[in-house]
Amino acid sequence: MTTLDFQTRVQDLLPEVEARMRQQVQGYHHILQSALDHLLSSGGKRVRPTLALLTSSMLGVEHEISINLAAAVELLHTATLVHDDLIDGSTVRRGIPTINAEFSDAATILTGDFLFSQAAWLGSQVRSVQVMALFAKTLSTIVNGEIVQIFERNAVTDRQAYIERIYAKTASMFELAAAAPAYIVNQEDRYFEPLRAYGYGIGMAFQMVDDVLDFSSDVVTMGKPVASDLRLGLITLPALHYLETNPEDDRMRSLQSGSKLDDTAMESLVKDIRASGAVQRAHDEADSMAQSALDALEQVPAGYERDALTELAEYVVARLH
Amino acid sequence: MTTLDFQTRVQDLLPEVEARMRQQVQGYHHILQSALDHLLSSGGKRVRPTLALLTSSMLGVEHEISINLAAAVELLHTATLVHDDLIDGSTVRRGIPTINAEFSDAATILTGDFLFSQAAWLGSQVRSVQVMALFAKTLSTIVNGEIVQIFERNAVTDRQAYIERIYAKTASMFELAAAAPAYIVNQEDRYFEPLRAYGYGIGMAFQMVDDVLDFSSDVVTMGKPVASDLRLGLITLPALHYLETNPEDDRMRSLQSGSKLDDTAMESLVKDIRASGAVQRAHDEADSMAQSALDALEQVPAGYERDALTELAEYVVARLH
Repeated sequence: MTTLDFQTRVQDLLPEVEARMRQQVQGYHHILQSALDHLLSSGGKRVRPTLALLTSSMLGVEHEISINLAAAVELLHTATLVHDDLIDGSTVRRGIPTINAEFSDAATILTGDFLFSQAAWLGSQVRSVQVMALFAKTLSTIVNGEIVQIFERNAVTDRQAYIERIYAKTASMFELAAAAPAYIVNQEDRYFEPLRAYGYGIGMAFQMVDDVLDFSSDVVTMGKPVASDLRLGLITLPALHYLETNPEDDRMRSLQSGSKLDDTAMESLVKDIRASGAVQRAHDEADSMAQSALDALEQVPAGYERDALTELAEYVVARLH
Repeated sequence: MTTLDFQTRVQDLLPEVEARMRQQVQGYHHILQSALDHLLSSGGKRVRPTLALLTSSMLGVEHEISINLAAAVELLHTATLVHDDLIDGSTVRRGIPTINAEFSDAATILTGDFLFSQAAWLGSQVRSVQVMALFAKTLSTIVNGEIVQIFERNAVTDRQAYIERIYAKTASMFELAAAAPAYIVNQEDRYFEPLRAYGYGIGMAFQMVDDVLDFSSDVVTMGKPVASDLRLGLITLPALHYLETNPEDDRMRSLQSGSKLDDTAMESLVKDIRASGAVQRAHDEADSMAQSALDALEQVPAGYERDALTELAEYVVARLH
């Protein structure tokens, strides 16, 4: 696993977090152990546990509790991906086969359920009922967002719906990771809101950057076609910006009404969106979300953790520069 | 909903429990609300929440907390059924269509996940980290049991494997419902173990009775063929008792090795098991489990709750008499 700049001060803790996740499955069926080993082998940047470790350290959360929190957050995230990949029929994630590519649907559903239960158990080991309530609410938000996406796919044509969708998909978990330590040290009045706002800002920026890269990268970099979401009928931030300046575009109206475009019309639409200023405006919006995260940091204690959180916010949008 | 004798003293509370469950889904996508309405409309005997309400009242748990506990237990149970029915391809439960019979697989998976998150949220409103940990462990036990059943179906040929399977499937949740109140009132040293033993005894008896009825009832009563589990290759208590006295039966050996029996061989095996003393011995074992539950009650405070728990234990095995 490559350590990023903002992870330097927690790099010794990340292997502990990983060990804590693996430790949970001991004593259960070997298939569940294999599944977790497989999931963890893909690495990943571990941004969410890093966030939890940094804000835990900043507020003086004791070592064991901070490891439990970080492991619970990453395990909850991992559990949601197991069911997502099954639902989307994805066969590869982070370069390795998904659980549903290797197991039956039944075993995949149960593996996800098991990871939910293990995330809940680790969450209980943080020993705060407020943190447990936040875990539960976050999972409700994430799952509700997926239900909305399935049933209202073509309804995401305004900014509000887009904001709600990426909040559910990404930012809600960043809020949890960043702000839970405020509950643990009973300083929620003072630090919950700025840490939540920080998590919200980088979580939203993180997803917006993904959505910008979907339009601005070439096929080789992303491993999927340009504008892959739009091709599935999903309108993301660059297309929204394009729609705002081109409200009469018939191709966008077709997509909004749930119709498919033929290949020629889709290629020309993608080309026009890329040639317009829409991708740059979406990019600017991601930058401004990251800036709102940085602003929120002014209200939390100075120190190496705050410096690292600053670097983390810069890292999230650096992929665009 | 018919109220059973042991529910007389909590009958005013059960509608509150149901309202608490429904209340959780407000503000989320209407599909999730419909799904929960549908699931709750089937009624059911609400044995698990009744158990939680009785032991809560016995130990003096405050009203709101006891409603949250009972609602969380029933919601967790309901969530596991949603995924179970999808995995088993069941289209009817308690006389109404299952979620997977009405929704896509994706929506069914997400509905189950959402109910897990809502059960966890209600669990957090019990305001005890020990209770949260117990919820999480119970879900791990249940899901692990299902994984074992999928991957080791034909390995359930000894008593130990059977006991582990029905503990995971049924008794673990009864333990949770019965014993959680001991944590809530900080009396775990005194009351956790007897209440857990009570929950274990009636939970095991409950599942054993189901397995006996599968052999002893006729098609009309159960709405499925006699020995439906055995026909699927699943060896339950009556067949285990038969095996213990007929270890050389070739048909049982075939099932043990994972082979299928033809219809004629299966009919003759079912007939032989029914004609042997095996069903009666399984019946006696269920009775003795219920008796162990009654014995455990001697260590908890006397009062109407203990009387109702006595009736509940008698009710569980009464279906056999």
